[in-house]
Amino acid sequence: MRYARIELGGRPHWARVDDEVVHVLDGSPLSGARPAGAVVPVGEAVFLPPVIPLVFYAVGLNYRGHIEHAERMGYPAAALPARPEIGYRANNALTGHGSPIVRPADVSGRFEAEGEVVAVIGRTLRRASRAEAQEAVFGWTIGNDVSAREWQNADRTFWRGKNSDTFKPMGPWIETDVDPLAQTTTVRVDGEVRASFDTGAMIFDPYDYIVETTKYITLHPGDVLWMGADSTVQLEPGNVVDIEISGIGVLSNPVVLDL
Amino acid sequence: MRYARIELGGRPHWARVDDEVVHVLDGSPLSGARPAGAVVPVGEAVFLPPVIPLVFYAVGLNYRGHIEHAERMGYPAAALPARPEIGYRANNALTGHGSPIVRPADVSGRFEAEGEVVAVIGRTLRRASRAEAQEAVFGWTIGNDVSAREWQNADRTFWRGKNSDTFKPMGPWIETDVDPLAQTTTVRVDGEVRASFDTGAMIFDPYDYIVETTKYITLHPGDVLWMGADSTVQLEPGNVVDIEISGIGVLSNPVVLDL
Repeated sequence: MRYARIELGGRPHWARVDDEVVHVLDGSPLSGARPAGAVVPVGEAVFLPPVIPLVFYAVGLNYRGHIEHAERMGYPAAALPARPEIGYRANNALTGHGSPIVRPADVSGRFEAEGEVVAVIGRTLRRASRAEAQEAVFGWTIGNDVSAREWQNADRTFWRGKNSDTFKPMGPWIETDVDPLAQTTTVRVDGEVRASFDTGAMIFDPYDYIVETTKYITLHPGDVLWMGADSTVQLEPGNVVDIEISGIGVLSNPVVLDL
Repeated sequence: MRYARIELGGRPHWARVDDEVVHVLDGSPLSGARPAGAVVPVGEAVFLPPVIPLVFYAVGLNYRGHIEHAERMGYPAAALPARPEIGYRANNALTGHGSPIVRPADVSGRFEAEGEVVAVIGRTLRRASRAEAQEAVFGWTIGNDVSAREWQNADRTFWRGKNSDTFKPMGPWIETDVDPLAQTTTVRVDGEVRASFDTGAMIFDPYDYIVETTKYITLHPGDVLWMGADSTVQLEPGNVVDIEISGIGVLSNPVVLDL
């Protein structure tokens, strides 16, 4: 099943996405909502981020290729993470499938996309076993962890380097019936493949992160874990960037320059 | 006016706090709620965090005393921040006035409180002038930025060092009629004063942070900015820690050891 949030009449609505139509729901699928009657053709739906989490968790370094790429770009060698230690992003930066990624006017240097699979938590969870972690994931969506590298590297925090408005496209929907570790992530810019990697080739998988995190932290329904990317891809204003994860879908966003 | 959230019948309710009674409201005071009729004596109210923000912003180093203290404790000298660069904490860690701060069983080393004044944002804000920043603050509350220092210093992120469950008491209420920069912050452990400093002796004040942050980031109603602390105070299981900010109130929490 595919669940999304769409904008209708200026307000957000939960929805179930079929091949050709989107069925508006009477509430959140995380608490068992049912179709409310209204339908919208998929091509006309305005997609919002499929969920606004209580906490937006993100993994920094989780693929060997990403670490090796950073070293080739001249950054200091990063040690491979020895444990699954979670990080964070900020909800203000979330935007939906089809919405613009706005590059601030004063960004210089590399401005990059990273295609990530995202776990959406379905239940309250503390001190989870691996089996409980697997059962607690409601479904999977796609995230694009956009970064302004000069700010990321020079600032004290990731506040504007990773969390400026629109820097975190997520969507288009949550797919509940897929094994994310058996998929392929492909990043295209203006239709040209710029990166492709095994989604499951992670240093620590989503369940490793859930087990470790919930030793100290309660996960809540709707929380998201962005699982990191193997490759980074340069973006320019005017580009359209697609993140495709087989079995889930395509998250597509135009890049525009802020004025 | 003082606004809080209290638990009643197992559910959260917004409320207005008078000297002796708490008036339950019919919605959020951020959108003009009115008394709904029910009242609870202040002494019997179960206080929740006064707001759950979309984004939980926090300032790392914002008082000279904190930086000097860290150096005395043997940490590398930290440069004074040259710009107001915001950081983050995580909503799972929030807990209310009166609720226990739970020290995980495997914490070793210093386990510390920091008393902070907290700005609660009242309106949507982007590219704010200083005057707009001042008008956009709905009110002020108190935060205790509890930290497990060994984890904070050794881990890749602040995930468990600062964001373990219950590490972020906030409350007891939002005071709308106070100038936070003209107040005194006092930290007491078991009734004994352990720290006291001018709340307003910040390197950058809340409006500096709002102006800088909103160059790239939209602030939303209910977002909170924790403004940092001048002093840190060691906590042990069995202690009760009070953070008092004159003109706002007292945030009091017992410290317990997780089993």
